[in-house]
Amino acid sequence: MIAGAMQDFALTLDKLLDHAAKWYPDVEVVTASDDGRGSRRVGYAVLRDRAQRVSRVLAARGIGQGDCVATLAWNSQEHLEAWYGIMGMGAVCHTLNPRLPASQLAWMIARSGARVLIASADLKDVAHSVARTVAAREPEVILLGGEDALAGSSLSDLIDATIGDYAWGGFDERSASGLCFTSGTTGAPKGVTYTHRANYLHTLRLLQADVLGITMRDVVMPVVPMFHANAWGLPFACPAVGAKLVMPGRQSDGAALAQLIAAEGVTIAAGVPTVWLGVFDHLDRTGTALPSLKRVMVGGAPLPQALADRIALRGIEVQTTWGMTELSPLGTATPPGAGPRDARSSGRPAVGVDLRLTDASGVALENQRDAEGHLWVRGASVVERYAGEEEPATVEGWFDTGDLARIDGDGYIQITGRSKDLIKSGGEWINPAEIEAIISALPGVVQSAVIGRADPKWGERPVLLVELRKDDKTSDEELLGALDGKVASWWIPREVVRLTEMPLAPTGKIDKLRLRDQYCRA
Amino acid sequence: MIAGAMQDFALTLDKLLDHAAKWYPDVEVVTASDDGRGSRRVGYAVLRDRAQRVSRVLAARGIGQGDCVATLAWNSQEHLEAWYGIMGMGAVCHTLNPRLPASQLAWMIARSGARVLIASADLKDVAHSVARTVAAREPEVILLGGEDALAGSSLSDLIDATIGDYAWGGFDERSASGLCFTSGTTGAPKGVTYTHRANYLHTLRLLQADVLGITMRDVVMPVVPMFHANAWGLPFACPAVGAKLVMPGRQSDGAALAQLIAAEGVTIAAGVPTVWLGVFDHLDRTGTALPSLKRVMVGGAPLPQALADRIALRGIEVQTTWGMTELSPLGTATPPGAGPRDARSSGRPAVGVDLRLTDASGVALENQRDAEGHLWVRGASVVERYAGEEEPATVEGWFDTGDLARIDGDGYIQITGRSKDLIKSGGEWINPAEIEAIISALPGVVQSAVIGRADPKWGERPVLLVELRKDDKTSDEELLGALDGKVASWWIPREVVRLTEMPLAPTGKIDKLRLRDQYCRA
Repeated sequence: MIAGAMQDFALTLDKLLDHAAKWYPDVEVVTASDDGRGSRRVGYAVLRDRAQRVSRVLAARGIGQGDCVATLAWNSQEHLEAWYGIMGMGAVCHTLNPRLPASQLAWMIARSGARVLIASADLKDVAHSVARTVAAREPEVILLGGEDALAGSSLSDLIDATIGDYAWGGFDERSASGLCFTSGTTGAPKGVTYTHRANYLHTLRLLQADVLGITMRDVVMPVVPMFHANAWGLPFACPAVGAKLVMPGRQSDGAALAQLIAAEGVTIAAGVPTVWLGVFDHLDRTGTALPSLKRVMVGGAPLPQALADRIALRGIEVQTTWGMTELSPLGTATPPGAGPRDARSSGRPAVGVDLRLTDASGVALENQRDAEGHLWVRGASVVERYAGEEEPATVEGWFDTGDLARIDGDGYIQITGRSKDLIKSGGEWINPAEIEAIISALPGVVQSAVIGRADPKWGERPVLLVELRKDDKTSDEELLGALDGKVASWWIPREVVRLTEMPLAPTGKIDKLRLRDQYCRA
Repeated sequence: MIAGAMQDFALTLDKLLDHAAKWYPDVEVVTASDDGRGSRRVGYAVLRDRAQRVSRVLAARGIGQGDCVATLAWNSQEHLEAWYGIMGMGAVCHTLNPRLPASQLAWMIARSGARVLIASADLKDVAHSVARTVAAREPEVILLGGEDALAGSSLSDLIDATIGDYAWGGFDERSASGLCFTSGTTGAPKGVTYTHRANYLHTLRLLQADVLGITMRDVVMPVVPMFHANAWGLPFACPAVGAKLVMPGRQSDGAALAQLIAAEGVTIAAGVPTVWLGVFDHLDRTGTALPSLKRVMVGGAPLPQALADRIALRGIEVQTTWGMTELSPLGTATPPGAGPRDARSSGRPAVGVDLRLTDASGVALENQRDAEGHLWVRGASVVERYAGEEEPATVEGWFDTGDLARIDGDGYIQITGRSKDLIKSGGEWINPAEIEAIISALPGVVQSAVIGRADPKWGERPVLLVELRKDDKTSDEELLGALDGKVASWWIPREVVRLTEMPLAPTGKIDKLRLRDQYCRA
């Protein structure tokens, strides 16, 4: 029996920033100011030093390995310092979405047991309100530094008053590093407890030439928030390869982001489609070009083909992706430079992400190509068990994503809907996502949703809910007529409900729970 | 205390070929025939099926997890099938260099305890001779299939007669996967026992855009042999990303390799400098171009600047690297597309490879930039302990590479010599590599070596050994005069020994052990 004898080198996230500090000490992390007029800059060596002092500040408060520290903050240098300070010492960074109601945030903190809540200075009132609402034990609120912090009270001031290194690492790579609750649009929020190993391996995946292919010459701007599934892993991937990182802070409108891209020479920018709608509207309106920008990474929601075409027309590559909180979050990506595909394609899985299609009962389809089914996934960066749950979230090692997908002959996947949204009518399935895609492409339509209403004869029948542009005159007949010949006749809804504003969940997705409650109760 | 709860997904090498078989089933592994006139082709899906049947064949012979199986073979489809068949079932693949003496190979097999020896058909006589020489227990010899195999006796025939899958994996990722003995130019060969985890993480490193950046659109030809530190990891990296793999078989001359590159559309080719000398001599002689070839990856020995310039002049990128058997083997690489550097530069380390410079006593230098010292390394793909040894090969977690290196201001490293070759004269160090570089660049010189001879006054004094081109008339004075003003005057050897042929170790490097024995005994 021959035993392996290679080094025991734990895959922990502190090593990513250590690498950046040693090999790319002067490469910058730039943070946009709240008023969009300035920016703060720091090199990776100094950022690491500051993050180590965050660990000291927390240790002085009794935080140790496995303890939870919550953050309620925008994408910024200071948030990044807090992240690495928390994770590097083996504590768990529980990121919170400031757009959620205070009561829900307090509920999440009670679940994680966080004793410290680190918040952006401009979220001071929210943070205190949330902290006071936490049932069991009120967490201490520490505001991040930056321009808005009050002197003497911020984390920046605390670390300025702290001296010396903190010995990071030394714990098992399967230790928890982060906690993120899913949106809960279809039930109570569920917590995903990330591990160092899962996020480290996810980082190596992002760096692959056929995934994101980030290099030391790139300048990367994650518009996707750090509280949303680790900002798609970019705050780990950029220091790991020495790429410059541009943090938009609270900025999210097209003009501010375009200005930031131009000023900092951003080469890769990542965000949901609505962000890019704003940026490219601004560019068209002002006749501005962004010569440095070579790629836009899109995820989180379907990308309209028209928007994809607008981006590509400017010579900027559109990289579509698919992922979810439970996957750390990247599942698939279109390989850079692989040429344009249909905007609905979400690319392909890299090694370490194992996908399969099953039928509704979870049995694998015999053909996994040119086939559509329920999408299951397994891998080192995929959730095994939700936080606080006894039961695994997997069946025989596979996690049911809840997504419906098609895998084409070349191995590219396309998300075709959500299994929970499927409507069963007369014993057959109707996929609302297909109907919504057709209706939403109509010029007068802002957003649309199709949900099922109980029906004594058919079991369920689809109802179309639609938000039209102001003053648009499209009739119900015109709306439904667009479906003729494109879907089976029995898929076509008989009823149209017009809404002045589509209700959205805090993640920006349509709140189908609320729609069902209000319009489709039996 | 919050516990992480991501999936337990072992990093084992069988998953790399599984991925290729599922997502790139028809991407080919092409093997050149021995006569250079044809080629054999197989898709990854069929190759995986055949490799699983190799596992069955071996299991039928009582091979199980942790057992060793030796291979004595060129780079070929059949060797690759044997590799994955061995490693996938948790057995250990002990690669042997056919250029070593039979007695040394037998000694290595006795150390590994391999009970089966799988050999290329053309190495049949060597294999049987080696097997008979093994002291304890004669291993069974199985010849690989391919064009030269005798009907009814090869591994191909055995797998043709075998049916069904073999359940790969299921063992710990720290299990041994491979065994490779170092060349032993400075003592008895030492065995490095690779693990699945070490090689898997090494694979992910190769795939990074700033390391090799291999994509699914690449066609990769490893000229470096599979018995030499895993062919630099390419037989793992190519299936992991779905790149086409071109195996040169026994071919190694410039004309045959150039033909293969052209015929198969090779985009990335990897090998030692002498290989490229042969290829580019052939191209110049015949006026041939290789339009598909975009990059040549070089390692294993210093790259002459003149050769680097010749390659670059054709618009082909030169990628220099540094590595060693103990590192799985890649240590550093010049990032693709980062622009040309001095041919002596070996690039930079990717995340997961931690380097440091020390003084001769192992104390880290205060400055790690613009500094030269002894090069130490640590990481998940670095040896901890040689096979069969009790003592670790590391000091406080760091492995002493034995190399001397300089790290420049930008973080690029340059290997400047071997610490064992250093000559101590009058209490100061002389670096033979610097002298050799100057002498070897002279037009009349084929190869040169500088070694120390004991000296009663100075401790040691350098001696220059040189092989000149046939009929070259360069005098000793001209040779030594080339050093004037380029090295300290007391570095200049007083004695020149002319050799008609420089003795080489089986790895192709100059055999300094033999030189010392013959020319510099006190």
